[in-house]
Amino acid sequence: MATKANSVPHPTVIKGLHNRWHPDIPPYATVKPGEVFKVECVDWTGAQIGNNDYSDDIRDVDLTKVHNLSGPVAITGAEPGDCLVVDILDVQPFEEMPWGYTGIFELTNGGGLFAKEFQSKAAKAIWDFQGIYASSRHIPGVRFAGITHPGLIGTAPSQELLNEWNRREGELIAACGEVVPAVAFPPEPKGVHIGSKEPLKPEVLAKIANEGARTIPGREHGGNCDIKNLSRGSRCYFPVFVKDALLSVGDLHFSQGDGELSFCGAIEMAGVVTFKTSIIKGGIEKFALKQPIFLPSPVDPLYSAKLVFEGISVDYHGDGKQYNMDATVAYKQAALNCIAYLMKLGYTREQAYLLLSAAPVESHVGAVVDSPNACVTMALPLGIFEHDILPNPEGLIKRDFGQCAIRSDGVV
Amino acid sequence: MATKANSVPHPTVIKGLHNRWHPDIPPYATVKPGEVFKVECVDWTGAQIGNNDYSDDIRDVDLTKVHNLSGPVAITGAEPGDCLVVDILDVQPFEEMPWGYTGIFELTNGGGLFAKEFQSKAAKAIWDFQGIYASSRHIPGVRFAGITHPGLIGTAPSQELLNEWNRREGELIAACGEVVPAVAFPPEPKGVHIGSKEPLKPEVLAKIANEGARTIPGREHGGNCDIKNLSRGSRCYFPVFVKDALLSVGDLHFSQGDGELSFCGAIEMAGVVTFKTSIIKGGIEKFALKQPIFLPSPVDPLYSAKLVFEGISVDYHGDGKQYNMDATVAYKQAALNCIAYLMKLGYTREQAYLLLSAAPVESHVGAVVDSPNACVTMALPLGIFEHDILPNPEGLIKRDFGQCAIRSDGVV
Amino acid sequence: MATKANSVPHPTVIKGLHNRWHPDIPPYATVKPGEVFKVECVDWTGAQIGNNDYSDDIRDVDLTKVHNLSGPVAITGAEPGDCLVVDILDVQPFEEMPWGYTGIFELTNGGGLFAKEFQSKAAKAIWDFQGIYASSRHIPGVRFAGITHPGLIGTAPSQELLNEWNRREGELIAACGEVVPAVAFPPEPKGVHIGSKEPLKPEVLAKIANEGARTIPGREHGGNCDIKNLSRGSRCYFPVFVKDALLSVGDLHFSQGDGELSFCGAIEMAGVVTFKTSIIKGGIEKFALKQPIFLPSPVDPLYSAKLVFEGISVDYHGDGKQYNMDATVAYKQAALNCIAYLMKLGYTREQAYLLLSAAPVESHVGAVVDSPNACVTMALPLGIFEHDILPNPEGLIKRDFGQCAIRSDGVV
Amino acid sequence: MATKANSVPHPTVIKGLHNRWHPDIPPYATVKPGEVFKVECVDWTGAQIGNNDYSDDIRDVDLTKVHNLSGPVAITGAEPGDCLVVDILDVQPFEEMPWGYTGIFELTNGGGLFAKEFQSKAAKAIWDFQGIYASSRHIPGVRFAGITHPGLIGTAPSQELLNEWNRREGELIAACGEVVPAVAFPPEPKGVHIGSKEPLKPEVLAKIANEGARTIPGREHGGNCDIKNLSRGSRCYFPVFVKDALLSVGDLHFSQGDGELSFCGAIEMAGVVTFKTSIIKGGIEKFALKQPIFLPSPVDPLYSAKLVFEGISVDYHGDGKQYNMDATVAYKQAALNCIAYLMKLGYTREQAYLLLSAAPVESHVGAVVDSPNACVTMALPLGIFEHDILPNPEGLIKRDFGQCAIRSDGVV
Repeated sequence: MATKANSVPHPTVIKGLHNRWHPDIPPYATVKPGEVFKVECVDWTGAQIGNNDYSDDIRDVDLTKVHNLSGPVAITGAEPGDCLVVDILDVQPFEEMPWGYTGIFELTNGGGLFAKEFQSKAAKAIWDFQGIYASSRHIPGVRFAGITHPGLIGTAPSQELLNEWNRREGELIAACGEVVPAVAFPPEPKGVHIGSKEPLKPEVLAKIANEGARTIPGREHGGNCDIKNLSRGSRCYFPVFVKDALLSVGDLHFSQGDGELSFCGAIEMAGVVTFKTSIIKGGIEKFALKQPIFLPSPVDPLYSAKLVFEGISVDYHGDGKQYNMDATVAYKQAALNCIAYLMKLGYTREQAYLLLSAAPVESHVGAVVDSPNACVTMALPLGIFEHDILPNPEGLIKRDFGQCAIRSDGVV
Repeated sequence: MATKANSVPHPTVIKGLHNRWHPDIPPYATVKPGEVFKVECVDWTGAQIGNNDYSDDIRDVDLTKVHNLSGPVAITGAEPGDCLVVDILDVQPFEEMPWGYTGIFELTNGGGLFAKEFQSKAAKAIWDFQGIYASSRHIPGVRFAGITHPGLIGTAPSQELLNEWNRREGELIAACGEVVPAVAFPPEPKGVHIGSKEPLKPEVLAKIANEGARTIPGREHGGNCDIKNLSRGSRCYFPVFVKDALLSVGDLHFSQGDGELSFCGAIEMAGVVTFKTSIIKGGIEKFALKQPIFLPSPVDPLYSAKLVFEGISVDYHGDGKQYNMDATVAYKQAALNCIAYLMKLGYTREQAYLLLSAAPVESHVGAVVDSPNACVTMALPLGIFEHDILPNPEGLIKRDFGQCAIRSDGVV
Repeated sequence: MATKANSVPHPTVIKGLHNRWHPDIPPYATVKPGEVFKVECVDWTGAQIGNNDYSDDIRDVDLTKVHNLSGPVAITGAEPGDCLVVDILDVQPFEEMPWGYTGIFELTNGGGLFAKEFQSKAAKAIWDFQGIYASSRHIPGVRFAGITHPGLIGTAPSQELLNEWNRREGELIAACGEVVPAVAFPPEPKGVHIGSKEPLKPEVLAKIANEGARTIPGREHGGNCDIKNLSRGSRCYFPVFVKDALLSVGDLHFSQGDGELSFCGAIEMAGVVTFKTSIIKGGIEKFALKQPIFLPSPVDPLYSAKLVFEGISVDYHGDGKQYNMDATVAYKQAALNCIAYLMKLGYTREQAYLLLSAAPVESHVGAVVDSPNACVTMALPLGIFEHDILPNPEGLIKRDFGQCAIRSDGVV
Repeated sequence: MATKANSVPHPTVIKGLHNRWHPDIPPYATVKPGEVFKVECVDWTGAQIGNNDYSDDIRDVDLTKVHNLSGPVAITGAEPGDCLVVDILDVQPFEEMPWGYTGIFELTNGGGLFAKEFQSKAAKAIWDFQGIYASSRHIPGVRFAGITHPGLIGTAPSQELLNEWNRREGELIAACGEVVPAVAFPPEPKGVHIGSKEPLKPEVLAKIANEGARTIPGREHGGNCDIKNLSRGSRCYFPVFVKDALLSVGDLHFSQGDGELSFCGAIEMAGVVTFKTSIIKGGIEKFALKQPIFLPSPVDPLYSAKLVFEGISVDYHGDGKQYNMDATVAYKQAALNCIAYLMKLGYTREQAYLLLSAAPVESHVGAVVDSPNACVTMALPLGIFEHDILPNPEGLIKRDFGQCAIRSDGVV
């Protein structure tokens, strides 16, 4: 007799690997709207970083090869102008690889928010995953629930949009000149990898290599936005710029703090994302969609008790310069205030820098209208610490937390 | 027979009014640590804005007179180097004045985040308070719980700190020249008001008038930080720079969105704050206190379901210029994306601008390390809307919400 | 020229006092749907309990006079079968009376959940309100944000419903016989008070006195449900049984734990409630409304970290008897486990009993199907304690918290 | 050169299967404190229920064989009187089995909270897991995030404790006589399964079969407490009654509502639990541990907006009988009110019953002291519904949601 439709079949598992954005990168796989599918991702560096106690691999990382993205996945029926609804149903590390890392990059190779201020030398922390939790032998005294998410997810740009990216970023590079760390990254043929199923014609590969946008920044299509709350369980609405949307994903994070301040700041991991999609015809116009919008997950960790640090757009940790409503400078002061506090608790500067990058700290824009000072906050969740960290009349108890992984030559 | 100490007596009520920061402003009242006391505050403009349906008063506001602060309150025993712990026990509007306002200022008189982009003309919304909720006849379709807080609270600066403020802000003004809106506000004798109990000596008043820091920006002592989560129920740790700390407070808000983007962006109100303080000797050193830190309140409204907009540091709503890791530009794009979405729902641009300023929207710094793009998010709480605002395949339902209060000459 | 309607006028303030439920109690005031109004309430005992350090007043309380309710308020247009939507916009203690109390009643005068087990003697705690917080000189070491609510709120019953109440409760009393504490309270002419504006005809007063339902239990109209989350900011949907609904309210609480276990278990206070109402015609049928339903407030305190105790329907703290899926017994075991834990921290049994009644503890029904054991949990919010209370390898630190207020004859 | 200790090795995976509680059941595996290990679990019935569209398997289930537990796991060093700290690090369904079920059992075979009231016939819903979410072809219109947890987890009882269980439950059975459904389940040799690695001596097996406690109810050691918030990420403190504690676990749930009202009420699944343990010597005395206590997980789904139903201890859905402070009766009324509301939305009674059992509904004990009525609430999270379910003036929109899986003979 007739029965209702049965459960969904087991999902397809998709891999694919590429490290540039370009409309001509062919889809690695095709799915239908409504289909549940999985995408496996290597870590963003492609396994350049090891589970060990030195940071030499961080120091020597080859950044022309990043980010390693999986896909592109073609979604049947998506057309330019549509909105691609993407359910990020789950994000999990590989069962056989229950660890990740957070890195401080060298000033001259990758940098980070305080690369100049700290004259950064490579350092890192390895995090062990125990179920939903991460903890690190390199940063004792903390344990927190992961807020697993793809740091990088986006649809392919159209040729026009790609041209626009290259134009504007090229102008910035031209205006700033050669600086360290670099202000932006132009197309770079060196290190390009396009892991298509069929061999690409040389002229196509050359075009991609010469024009393909680097994956470092987030852009109108999503990309490397590094938004910690775009986490498993979220629903995201992407603008579609090319036929079949061509969704790519990578740079999985087990956890991240708002701002991801050390650049390789999240807990970087390899793993698998479970997806389902649907298409809203003409969604770009319907929702005035200039960049993705999303509905956060109901299962993000709830650490409601927090200690909040403030910062303003004066470099009072440095030369005392007054900036003009600069929220980035204000963010930096809040972070430096927080680092100074953590150091009173016994963490080294490098440990504190890594911790703020990796743990679920929250940074809010307080106000950006009170000339000349923007005000930005950074909130430490109390529940991630093994000990009470609140201010008290006796002052903070300074404990010995050792040091994170540093270079084998001992330079910090 | 002996009994235990009884309940605390009724708290002292303190007023006092001044509108500059200066160490020589004498305390208006003195309290002891542990004492509960109340401070009454006029609205930040000193009642220049009325509960009516035109924005002419916003257009004509005299900003030399702001902010009207209450205090200073001397806390017995506080000394430079200490930390003043301030419990903001409650913040309530006056019983007899259950309304507030949000304003868009003119480009040439006050400005705001989009003053130039929108060539802003004065507009406003009056909000009625019904218990814990605010709603507005000028922005129909929304109602939200207040997150009452002082927009402005701080300890008095030392002479040295004041000098430093004047130095650095003066340099910024000098570097930028005369621009509209102004990048910063130097000391301004016009409009100074110091409502001390005893008449001030003319030379003291002159000194204050000539040197006193304007109250517009937040600084190391707190001040006009406009942090919505520094709300009733919070505990705040202030650095102490002068004898007895000299705490001042004002600019009460019934509610505010992260960023307070229209400048007079919160729901501005008059009301009363209930305080309790204690002193931690040497707290600045103990906690590495460069700027206040705080513990947020457990009673901030919980609107967990949200729709999140993203922005990057490219002015893609304007001239397409690429900025260098500029979180302020990224915040602006997120806000403009959100405004565009709200306009699809039927709100006017002015209503949307006011709503984002006044409602409990959250703005997070996503990432500030992915060169060249900072990524900032802005989250609309779904629960404040009377209708479902989520994206759906049919597109958004556009309703007629009229218009907010505008100038009597009809110019928008 | 024409302007939009102005802000709402200041709300009417309503008092009125009565202590029975009966359809013939005339309205004390009349309001229209959409109107904001306030109702002032004495504490539930009518000021029989004082702010002092003995519990003699608790011991001697006259319970025939309770609960003191304010109203009834007639809502124009409400008819039997309708749903009365009630916005509890705010609940505040009187400015001039910033304190409340929690009491343990004598076994023979009021009782409480453990009246028999503890052979209860009168005890109490006075709580001081400091803004949104309560703390007590009688229970040191805790401070928590209030979740202010009316313990008692309801519409008037119809004559038929009243008769049904009297029938069923009479049958229970008949079945149980005279027990201490009483299982239910029949109509009781002694102590009746009906504070109508116009003198009542003697025969009406006699009818009310002889038939009027006691206010102790919650029933289909709402009444004394003592639900802590029906708090300020909630929207409640009441069934309407008589013309104009006749809403009454009282028994205001500054805070309460789930279960209100010591009977006078909340922090009892006098104060004022702000309301707004609307009517949904035929709402009883539309929503299958047998008893009120409600939408909780977004501003209930968020204490997310908790320590949870479990209980099952075996009296393992007493005679070891196995009960049959009895959630009340399971609740009691969870509470007794929690009390035993609090005593390890140094609280006396009476302090612990009062604290669980008054603080925002949560009690969930885990399961009521695993024969023969119901499982109920009780959760202590960690954030209300000054010290860390978590289990740790060294065991709990026992502090000296003194004792709560007890009888002047020293009997506990 | 010397390096720090490396990451934890991959965890041991433990199975084992038994379906009674007895101190003589030998450990299936042994772990050390601090070791991360995994335990694989079949579903509680041992795969008696299929992923299909009829409920015949529910009707015919053999309940003598339940619950299938995995373990026991010996924890080296635990001794009677200790506290076993168990971190439930994760709970996941098997990758290859992404579905679960909720069942209504027959009145005469398993029952459930409303077995008598509804004269229950077998029915069920199959739930598909898509990442963190569950949805069902048998209950359209809802989707919710899982709160995965073991319904059943506990340490082995001592012989004395086991004897006490058998005594008290035997007395209840004796007192109630043969009733349907049964009030409790005595030891039952039929269906006993003890999957030890070494063959058990016949006399040991016979002793276990004759004395072994059934797994249906929760008890002092934990057991089948069915607490939805004892979920992945929780830390639980168990009393230890025998050498090496002997931890067993099973009855995994993808989700459950407070109360688990249909008995097989959670979303039952097979899967794997990740654990870590530690031992607190003498913890039973240190923490007054009569039954486990626990710290809930920070990643339980946050559905803050809710619609709350109330119930009192009067059977007003049935014969109108007044019960004496009976929280179970009150829970039932709240649930019946909720079911009636869901039926107004178009769900069948069976669908509503299953939904309340399986979805993350919350049930609080409002008050258990207002004689004679206990008050219990049940809260529906709004965010799990595809459509708006709030009361509104026009009444609820009744949709066609079909029916859940029923018996192939069509009897409901």
